[in-house]
Amino acid sequence: MPRDRIRLKSLWDRITDAEEAALHVRDGMTVGMSGFTRAGDAKAVPAAIAARALHDPLKITLMTGASLGGNVDRELTEAKALARRLPFQADPTLRSAINRGEVMFIDQHLSETVELLRSRQMGPVDVAIVEAAAITEEGGIIPTTSVGNTATFAILAEKVIVELNLSQPAALEGLHDIYIPTRRPHRDPIPVLQPESRPGVPYIPVDPAKIAAIVVTDRTDSAASILPGDADTTAIAGHLTEFLQSEVRKGRLGPSLSPLQAGIGSIANAVMQGLADGPFSGLTMYSEVLQDSTFDLFDAGCLRFASGSSITLGPERQRDVLNRLEHYKPKLVLRPQEVSNHPEVVRRLGVIAVNTALEFDIYGNVNSTHVGGTHMMNGVGGSGDFARNAYMSIFVTKSLAKGGTISSVVPMVSHVDHCEHDVDILVTEVGLADLRGLAPRERAATIIRNCVHPTYRELASDYFKAASARGGHTPHLLEEAFSWHLRLRETGSMLPRQTVLA
Amino acid sequence: MPRDRIRLKSLWDRITDAEEAALHVRDGMTVGMSGFTRAGDAKAVPAAIAARALHDPLKITLMTGASLGGNVDRELTEAKALARRLPFQADPTLRSAINRGEVMFIDQHLSETVELLRSRQMGPVDVAIVEAAAITEEGGIIPTTSVGNTATFAILAEKVIVELNLSQPAALEGLHDIYIPTRRPHRDPIPVLQPESRPGVPYIPVDPAKIAAIVVTDRTDSAASILPGDADTTAIAGHLTEFLQSEVRKGRLGPSLSPLQAGIGSIANAVMQGLADGPFSGLTMYSEVLQDSTFDLFDAGCLRFASGSSITLGPERQRDVLNRLEHYKPKLVLRPQEVSNHPEVVRRLGVIAVNTALEFDIYGNVNSTHVGGTHMMNGVGGSGDFARNAYMSIFVTKSLAKGGTISSVVPMVSHVDHCEHDVDILVTEVGLADLRGLAPRERAATIIRNCVHPTYRELASDYFKAASARGGHTPHLLEEAFSWHLRLRETGSMLPRQTVLA
Repeated sequence: MPRDRIRLKSLWDRITDAEEAALHVRDGMTVGMSGFTRAGDAKAVPAAIAARALHDPLKITLMTGASLGGNVDRELTEAKALARRLPFQADPTLRSAINRGEVMFIDQHLSETVELLRSRQMGPVDVAIVEAAAITEEGGIIPTTSVGNTATFAILAEKVIVELNLSQPAALEGLHDIYIPTRRPHRDPIPVLQPESRPGVPYIPVDPAKIAAIVVTDRTDSAASILPGDADTTAIAGHLTEFLQSEVRKGRLGPSLSPLQAGIGSIANAVMQGLADGPFSGLTMYSEVLQDSTFDLFDAGCLRFASGSSITLGPERQRDVLNRLEHYKPKLVLRPQEVSNHPEVVRRLGVIAVNTALEFDIYGNVNSTHVGGTHMMNGVGGSGDFARNAYMSIFVTKSLAKGGTISSVVPMVSHVDHCEHDVDILVTEVGLADLRGLAPRERAATIIRNCVHPTYRELASDYFKAASARGGHTPHLLEEAFSWHLRLRETGSMLPRQTVLA
Repeated sequence: MPRDRIRLKSLWDRITDAEEAALHVRDGMTVGMSGFTRAGDAKAVPAAIAARALHDPLKITLMTGASLGGNVDRELTEAKALARRLPFQADPTLRSAINRGEVMFIDQHLSETVELLRSRQMGPVDVAIVEAAAITEEGGIIPTTSVGNTATFAILAEKVIVELNLSQPAALEGLHDIYIPTRRPHRDPIPVLQPESRPGVPYIPVDPAKIAAIVVTDRTDSAASILPGDADTTAIAGHLTEFLQSEVRKGRLGPSLSPLQAGIGSIANAVMQGLADGPFSGLTMYSEVLQDSTFDLFDAGCLRFASGSSITLGPERQRDVLNRLEHYKPKLVLRPQEVSNHPEVVRRLGVIAVNTALEFDIYGNVNSTHVGGTHMMNGVGGSGDFARNAYMSIFVTKSLAKGGTISSVVPMVSHVDHCEHDVDILVTEVGLADLRGLAPRERAATIIRNCVHPTYRELASDYFKAASARGGHTPHLLEEAFSWHLRLRETGSMLPRQTVLA
């Protein structure tokens, strides 16, 4: 059975177990692993590395596409095997180690990692560990549920370890389009002219001599833990759908809008699901992660095509989609993340980008990453690749967090991932702020009116008024800019003691 | 003489004076004017609008390429004729009005303005006022020393007013390459594959029927007020040249490096001049403003070709270059700023971007625009178009300002234009910090060691240590993050009273 999927027979003798394969990874190495938001990650060899590191200490630099599933990051962290980690993560144990300063985390725009590797500004990659659905007659690697950075890791690495995952359907073959931008300074335009363009090949071309080991596995991807929508996400989706409808009425967009990108997470997923209630048809996605909502929109008949870098689904949708892959396959393509997120393509296609903010401020600067300005949550991910180059850059969040003790809209964000220049539309369950063509003082008035929760509105308004009296293009009281964050730390709430939650 | 330059004879009867032409601009209109960093701006009609507004009040939205020369922004501000201004400015009188909240200023990435106009997310443009060196047989407009946003303003505007400037040499014809990206969502790749690519035409194609007036002028562009280099800029240039040489030695770059972009201003100009002392040859520029340094590098024989959107020169260089234009012309092209700054092309060519910071922080976030976090200086300009998409993003500044009472490196920037993800290399006269592949704590140690002035080093180090003790991926003490800025406001210096300037 595994041998059916290894069509280059000369590779059959590379089949080994995870522990043996893991020996290729040694202290001080840089390791590139497949995996993008829990999809298509290597599962057995990383666990074997972690197990070995418990008694035979080693430290590696670990690069992936984005976050990993299972317990890989936790196990490697607990085994103290991670010296350095990039470009994204979402594991609680690793997050703590990063915030203690024990693991050096490089939080990068997801399209940039392989550019830095190719130009040797980072790297080199010693070993690539990649999950595959099959190996072709020529030794080409067929990825599984994500492409991420896998292709470039495998192409650049000294050695490649393949995890052949028999639980991933053979029908995945043909889903991927592996196009690697040519070397600068003589790079050709990236020939992606629409979401369905397929300029590449359906496998990762690697020299079979580099394939040092093949490990057969059968564990499924970790399912996404997407929360179901609630009244707030329904309201956010409603505001956004209504706004997009009005753009159609004004003739700025057609009924198929413009290709859509949606960030990872429950809120963005719910917002995308909400589009099914709009009068849109023939929608397309040019995104990085395809979540449950993508398939809901397919099933609702309003989505025509989706391009991404991974398919990350809740448990039911995962079984459903993998079982009916042939049904969805003609409408899907998975690409390397440098192509799915490429500024060139995002700008060319005119993507409508919908990403989630951790907090934003009254002028529309967005914090996507740092709790309290200091502690890393997950990473900036692809939001910067999309937001700056989008036709329209939208950020969504609930106006309150932690039972109302936190306002997601603050006087000044404690960390900036997206500056005001990159933020066109903000949406909370309270309403939508259309910031296009507005100066900061106008942005503040609009955001305070439309997005801030009523409980915090007067507080925000008072800050803005006091700051404006002092003057400036972007009025602030530097001595009070973080007063809400400080009050939260000191009292457990951003609200002054006398205020009662509305 | 003017008629020689208006080759479409049917336009001869549109020749009029500035006052008459200015009557096309009425209260509430949106006006797009030529002009990019003092080069190629309309000179007579804007002055006539301002003069009229003194007795016949009107308010307009004024869009340009970037900053204007002469007194246009001052006169329009004094006449209270500006309701709204974008996407960049550099006039002290206008700046004050912006900071008082009297003129709504929209500070935009320079490549984005025309995208927003074309997709009708801003606009429409009622009148375009553009400087020309000539009008072709078909009514095509030959720009002068800048292209900026002129082409799209003229193409989209209801009416076009041409200022035919006889002081601009006729030899400017052929210098420009007007390529307008096709409409999304069916946009073609932008066919600029190297700095010297010329996919466009040498004139702005407009319907001659739209040309409502032609005004003949003869005033030269305002000269740039570039300060000569000093010991600090020489040191900054030295650190950068040495660093680029080491990149060549490591084989990451060849002796012609990668196409160079340099921001506007004295420091970036001096840094570029310094490259003439390095062992580089066959250099190219893919930049927005071509300053004196571009021509110094041509004359030194190390620059092969320069692409920009404007030529902005000091008084001597201006006379010299315009007189010897035929000498330089084969090595030059001026493009629309959406092409000179286009993320697609910047990323494709692998541009090395050198921009000036107002201040940066110990983690490498950059403030390019806001003094004290609140007061606008000029605008973000093209720095964001380049920094995010560059092969390598470099920011330069002197470590001290105002006689040492200000440290340009602070615990936390008071405004973020470029987040740490977009900043690879920082240089002050003290030294260079190579931040590639480093986590925030490592970035801080490197920046404090290499870039902070010795007078502030211990202060910065103490902050970082105290913040690190509290934990976090990006350690900060939110209650002290702006303490240096606040001390400056209260005492006139960022230094505590007991500290003596080293």
